[in-house]
Amino acid sequence: MANPTAAMLVIGDEILSGRTRDANMHFLAGELTKHGIRLAEVRIVPDIHDRIVTALNALRDGHDTVFTSGGIGPTHDDITADAVAAAFALPIDVREDARALMADHCARTGRTLNEARLRMARIPEGATLIDNPISAAPGFTLGNVHVMAGVPSVFQAMVASVLPAITGGAPLLSQTLRVDRPEGDVATALGDLAARFPELSIGSYPFQQNGAFGTNVVIRGGDSGRVDAAMGQLCALFGVRT
Amino acid sequence: MANPTAAMLVIGDEILSGRTRDANMHFLAGELTKHGIRLAEVRIVPDIHDRIVTALNALRDGHDTVFTSGGIGPTHDDITADAVAAAFALPIDVREDARALMADHCARTGRTLNEARLRMARIPEGATLIDNPISAAPGFTLGNVHVMAGVPSVFQAMVASVLPAITGGAPLLSQTLRVDRPEGDVATALGDLAARFPELSIGSYPFQQNGAFGTNVVIRGGDSGRVDAAMGQLCALFGVRT
Repeated sequence: MANPTAAMLVIGDEILSGRTRDANMHFLAGELTKHGIRLAEVRIVPDIHDRIVTALNALRDGHDTVFTSGGIGPTHDDITADAVAAAFALPIDVREDARALMADHCARTGRTLNEARLRMARIPEGATLIDNPISAAPGFTLGNVHVMAGVPSVFQAMVASVLPAITGGAPLLSQTLRVDRPEGDVATALGDLAARFPELSIGSYPFQQNGAFGTNVVIRGGDSGRVDAAMGQLCALFGVRT
Repeated sequence: MANPTAAMLVIGDEILSGRTRDANMHFLAGELTKHGIRLAEVRIVPDIHDRIVTALNALRDGHDTVFTSGGIGPTHDDITADAVAAAFALPIDVREDARALMADHCARTGRTLNEARLRMARIPEGATLIDNPISAAPGFTLGNVHVMAGVPSVFQAMVASVLPAITGGAPLLSQTLRVDRPEGDVATALGDLAARFPELSIGSYPFQQNGAFGTNVVIRGGDSGRVDAAMGQLCALFGVRT
């Protein structure tokens, strides 16, 4: 049984300008792998309505689940919720349940529920809210799309609340062997090994340490018996880790 | 005059599985910004031929320049060069100039120029080689696409050799003001400011420090006079940095 697939859409000029180094993609990738979901594509687009709509529609057609990150704050450049509504051709407005969350948070923190903060209660029709335990402004789920904040602490909390409800597959197992030989010396044997285990992903990652070249070989797959068998052959090939 | 645009295609299962945190995108984003080129989209795809071909063709049609990262090593999972050739419908084979670079490097380092290393001399017809001062295996430029290694030190060296030949635009300037007020308090004023400077990008990035909420406001644009004017109004609004 193939593992379900996911895609991620990162929205934000600050990532593309180099101002901010994205952290959410790497975090989500690790969480999905643990959960048996294969992250199959990531796109990063700027804060431009049409670009968000086009990318989201391409990704949600091609994958079981889509996660978005960024653009759901109170400012003029936070346009993700409206773009998601447009992608689904659904109306969007301030929704009472989201407004209540914001009003409660403002009351507790002594802030004013002004027009800008009310923007964060704009939710497309039919969406389910995603809890934000850190700063209240909710994310939302619409169809197979989970719309989440870009601030890493909030993003991570939202992933934690969304993932348990998503159907995963068998956990994706991985074993790594460090081989102290340059990639070019081990490549042919690795290619033969990969051909003997077509259902596994056998990756090869060169590194350099203290002037010497080495290769990390990563064997990934859903069947622990097959991963073990491939690792056994790999160790026999390179005479290590019995 | 609008700045030229670029896209990036990151190729690699190891990024999507969460094993490796990509560093090349953030590096390239910063370099392009300094060079006056706007990074307009990034896609990350796995080591799957058709996925690379489709993504590359979409990106090279939509942007002035495309940079790829990853998948040009000697192992079975290094399929980028073949995928790029397929995207351009061009033949690919071991090329003498690339073979000579590899042979020279092997002679100097006491390695064998075996079949696996010769894979790295496979270059699509008509491509120009990109120098690899670190491990010899070249990248290449084909049309508006620059194909580069995934190993960060090699990627960075290749960017340094490619960028000077690419036509940039006016440098993209940026000024940042730190405002010690939560985003929801400053959002309306920022929206009004953005409306007065439609040619600038005014971004708002919330942060939390020692329990207090603040907002970094970043003003970006190509015209230093307009960036200064917007920053002046921003400082007047929030009473700082005269």
